[in-house]
Order: sequence, then structure tokens, then C-alpha cells
Amino acid sequence: MSKPAPSQLAFVPFVSVENMMKIVNTIGPAQMMAELAEVIEADFRRWESFDKTPRVASHSQEGVIELMPTSDGDTYGFKYVNGHPANMARGFQTVTAFGVLARVDTGYPILLSEMTILTALRTAATSAMAAKHLAPKGATTMAMIGNGAQCEFQALAFKEICRIETVRLYDVDPDATQKAASNLEGAGLTVISCNSSEEAVTGAQIITTCTADKQYATILTDNMIGSGVHINAIGGDCPGKTELHKDILLRSDIFVEYPPQTRIEGEIQQLEEDHAVTELWQVITGQTPGRTRSDQITLFDSVGFAIEDFSALNYLHGQLDRTGHYVQLDMLADPDDPRDLFGMVRRAS
Amino acid sequence: MSKPAPSQLAFVPFVSVENMMKIVNTIGPAQMMAELAEVIEADFRRWESFDKTPRVASHSQEGVIELMPTSDGDTYGFKYVNGHPANMARGFQTVTAFGVLARVDTGYPILLSEMTILTALRTAATSAMAAKHLAPKGATTMAMIGNGAQCEFQALAFKEICRIETVRLYDVDPDATQKAASNLEGAGLTVISCNSSEEAVTGAQIITTCTADKQYATILTDNMIGSGVHINAIGGDCPGKTELHKDILLRSDIFVEYPPQTRIEGEIQQLEEDHAVTELWQVITGQTPGRTRSDQITLFDSVGFAIEDFSALNYLHGQLDRTGHYVQLDMLADPDDPRDLFGMVRRAS
Repeated sequence: MSKPAPSQLAFVPFVSVENMMKIVNTIGPAQMMAELAEVIEADFRRWESFDKTPRVASHSQEGVIELMPTSDGDTYGFKYVNGHPANMARGFQTVTAFGVLARVDTGYPILLSEMTILTALRTAATSAMAAKHLAPKGATTMAMIGNGAQCEFQALAFKEICRIETVRLYDVDPDATQKAASNLEGAGLTVISCNSSEEAVTGAQIITTCTADKQYATILTDNMIGSGVHINAIGGDCPGKTELHKDILLRSDIFVEYPPQTRIEGEIQQLEEDHAVTELWQVITGQTPGRTRSDQITLFDSVGFAIEDFSALNYLHGQLDRTGHYVQLDMLADPDDPRDLFGMVRRAS
Repeated sequence: MSKPAPSQLAFVPFVSVENMMKIVNTIGPAQMMAELAEVIEADFRRWESFDKTPRVASHSQEGVIELMPTSDGDTYGFKYVNGHPANMARGFQTVTAFGVLARVDTGYPILLSEMTILTALRTAATSAMAAKHLAPKGATTMAMIGNGAQCEFQALAFKEICRIETVRLYDVDPDATQKAASNLEGAGLTVISCNSSEEAVTGAQIITTCTADKQYATILTDNMIGSGVHINAIGGDCPGKTELHKDILLRSDIFVEYPPQTRIEGEIQQLEEDHAVTELWQVITGQTPGRTRSDQITLFDSVGFAIEDFSALNYLHGQLDRTGHYVQLDMLADPDDPRDLFGMVRRAS
């Protein structure tokens, strides 16, 4: 008996790392982040239509593995992501990720994708989208403290979405700053490499922190933060991992993605459980004001939320036909008769 | 500049449906379930070394999508699985699944596999492993109510692991029974197709229920259950989905996988929250007796637990070299310098 070919239902489109790089380079990273910021903002506008839950974390001494699910009732998505600060020294990525979209009505996956690169893009797109609503008007200079894997994506997203013209880089490792400066050559940004955090924040209206140590760190101290700046705090995203001195938090108006998760993982784990914070989606929908005064310190305490990954996967799903950069994976058992799984296996022999 | 090939770290072994069928047919389904029962039993013996959490479920009107994570401190695993009872009528599988294993120390995935077929195998292997500890000595006849996708796997696993000689089949749809009977031809079992549940249970020492309706059903009523039998209840595995009349539960000694999950999803959702149940792993380790009397009704209220999937994925990981039936997926971004993710993407253009 000849073996029948699997039906179309058996296949799930898969975007490998190689194909993700082709997609990013086809669309262009800055353009792709601008498009991602638009879909993320649109999903933040319909925040209340999503099932929301803090991510499901499995902590170990070396790091954390997390599952981040959400659903809008039509489509379900989740991301697998790890965070292992010691990985870099061993030649591994600190963060790797992949994700899946599925149809809610059948439960069948419709997309599997690498998300290490996609997460870097969506994180920077989310930061810039938040800054568009919160940063002081006319901001042109951003300090970037921590020049690791996220740095260039942040710089390009802020240029594209917030019209930042100058980035001031600092990292405890000068090689990281050198790498970022080199990668940003020709990007249309003025790039200034600095020798200290203090030097980096000088004259900056926006300050982005994205360091990777899993510890209570103090990347920014209170005296470094003048009035009127916007702080984009990316690296404090895990219990026991923060970047800002508590005094900065107490002077700031704090904006977060999903409070139940941010109170566990964000900078605000340093504060009382009932410290007032504003949900970013409420600013975007106009329910709550964002920046109200030019001397106000706004802080986006970003930890990354499942809806951003959902938006990114949904966006990517829409790019499959546009770019053609994917393959079909034979991932779902699809017998002719759904009850005849055993017969399908036996007939394959 | 020539594009460097991805390093070995970029790749994750992937077992497609086609390769899973090759693996099952290479090892043989009965032999593979016997081997799976051994690794599942070994993992139940070290139950306390696992991180355990009820699965993370996203319910909709049509069904449920679940993530089932666990970790033993060295290896992390999770399964994505859906349950959509209406799927069958639309030509989709009621249950499809895939899963991932990862290293806890780096967070890097080491295996991606289809799990629709693997779940069918591990479910039957777990049922038979439990029955080995709980069923009356010398049991030779099993009734099987519900002859869908799980049926033949159960029959073969009970033959191989519990020395069952006769199966008595019943399904509300005679075509399902016909399909199962046909698939079991030549398997070394006496197969008897029955016209009612009552007929099927006659003379059976083990009764397996595996129906798929998402509702409070009564597949077995109290008068059908004589003393001394072992009930293997597979289908009641979701809030609002049960198969047994409550009176049967009250006459039975009930064994479960993980009480916090089973109380939500299993037959015992019909009982008070503090109704006494025994954890199967305690029977396997000898901490608690299993069957103590020949007239006792034992009930394995099985809902499927993450550790069984972990065991199955770990077993499968060990079969990759044995069988060679897998491909490498370019799933993890792996730049030469872990901080230079952006440079890797740009150099690919």
C-alpha cells in the first residue's frame, strides 16, 4: 500500500533563524520595528479583549525559563523564552526564544517561529512606542547604558519612531560599546561612546537601561537623573534583577505593561505592593494622561508582556506571503479519520 | 562577505510526524509503550524531585489549549496540547500536541517533537503502568468504552504490560468499534465488539473509559460496576468533562497523578474538595498500599500530567541516535559574539 502524503492540515509554517534574518533584511530592521510598534499599539488599544496571566516561570540558580501565553479569543499565542545571564560568558545567548500562534476554534498551531531576533525587535518597538507617548516633546538625545544584544535595536527603533538623532553609549565593557558603535555606523544617528554612565546621561532627554546582570544593581543613581527625562528601563525584568536606585522610582511617574507581572519582575519590586503605577494601555487609549509636565520624570518599567509577543507573531504571520521566507513543518498528526491515529501510524510502516 | 554557517548551537533536533511514525514502527508500538512505561514509572519513583504545577489552560467555548511544564532541575520540558471535542466532526484531531525539552543550565531547547502520537503512546503506557500496580491479580479481560484515537494504544499497552488477553469494545458509533477491531487484528488479542456498555463490561476485570465529549457524561453507571474491578478512567480530563456516575466514585479507592490538577479536571471534580485520594507515585514507591483486597474497586482517575510528557520526551531524546529519525532545525539565533545579535542579522543580508 502506498503511503498517502500528509494533508495540508498536518503542516505548520516555520520561520527559522535564517528565514527570520531574511525577513528582517527584506523589510529593513527600522521599518519592521515601526510596523511592529503599530501592531503592538493597536493591540494595547484593545487590551481588555485579551486573556492575561503573569508568565509561568521556572527558576533555577542559572536563570529562568518562561512560558508566556495569551489569547484574544480568536488566536492564541505563547512564547518560550529563557534568561540566563551567565550564558554570555559561555558563548550562549542570554535570551533565546521561540513562539507559536494557534487558532482558538480548533486548537491547531498556525505558526512556529524563532523569537530570539523577533523578541529583540518587539522589545525595542514597544520601548519606542511607549516613549512616543511619554518622552518629553522634541527629545533628540538618548543615553543607552548597557550595549549588549538589545542596544542597536533600541537605537534604531527610537530613531525611526521617536526621531532620536543622537545616542550616547556606555557599557562596563568597552568592547560592547565598540561593537554597538560599529554596528550603528551609517544608520543616520550621531553615536557618542562614553566612559561612564554619568557622561552618557549628560544632555539626554531619554535614558535607556538594558543591562543583563541577574542581581539588584544600581545602574542609575538618583543624582544622575535630572527633571524632565524619560527613563526606558528594560533590564530589570526578573525577581532579584533591577537596575535603578529606589530613590529614582520615588521621584518618577511609573508606567507598566501588566501590574501583576511587573510587581514581581520589574523595578517596582523594590516598592510597596500598592505603590501607584499607570498601565500603559490606558495612556494609549487616552483614559489616563501620560506626561503632563515638562519637568516630570516618566519611567517605563518594562518587563515584556505576552501581548507584545502575540502582536509580533501575528504581524509575522502576515509577512509570510509578503516575503515567502518560511518552510512547512510536518508537525500535526492528521489521519484521514481523526479517530484512526493508530491506523495512520501502522500504515506508515 | 560570505555568510558563515550557523554553529551547532543554533540547531534543535526536530521529530516530525513522519519521523515519529518511523520511530514507532522501528521500535514497534507495543515495545515502545513497554519502554515508555518503564521510564514513566522511574520518574514517578523520583516524583519529589520534579517542579510541579497544574497545567496552564486557556479555555474557550470550543475547547482548551494547555501548556504543561515541568523540570527535574537538570532538564525542563513542556507540552502544548489542545482538546477540542467538536474537531472530529470537522475532520480535525480532538487532541494535537507538540513538546520541547531544554537544558535548565543554559535554557537552550534540545528537542522539539510532535506529540500527538507520542501523547497517545504515553497515555496508554501510563494507564497500563498504573493498572500493573492496581488491577486485580490475574486480570485477563478489559472492557474499552470509547473506541476513538486512544483505543488501540490502550489495548496494546495492556496486552504488553498487564498481560491482558481479551478486549471488549463498545462505542456509541459502531464505525469506531469496527475501526478499532480491524486495527487490532493480528495483535494477539481476542477482540469482542459489543452493542452496549453493559455488554462490554460483562466479565471484564479492567474497565477503560476513553470517550471525548466535553460534558458531564455518564458512561458508566453504578449498577454496571461489580466488586473487584479496576477502572481506568481516561476521558474525564477537563472541567465539566466527566464519564463516571458519582456513586461509582464513592465506592472506589481513587488513585490520581497530581491532586491539585485532578481535583479541577478529573472525575473527582464531582466530589468534595477533601475527598481522600491516593497519589499513584506513593503506591509505586511503596509508601502507600495500592490494591489491598480482591473485592476492592480501584479507580485510576487519570487526566495526564506533565511528568509523563517529560518522561516521554526524555525517552524520545534517547531514541534519536538509536533510530536516526529526526532533522536539525535552525531555531536558535547563535551569533559568534552573543552580544552581537544585530550584527549577525545585518551580516546575513
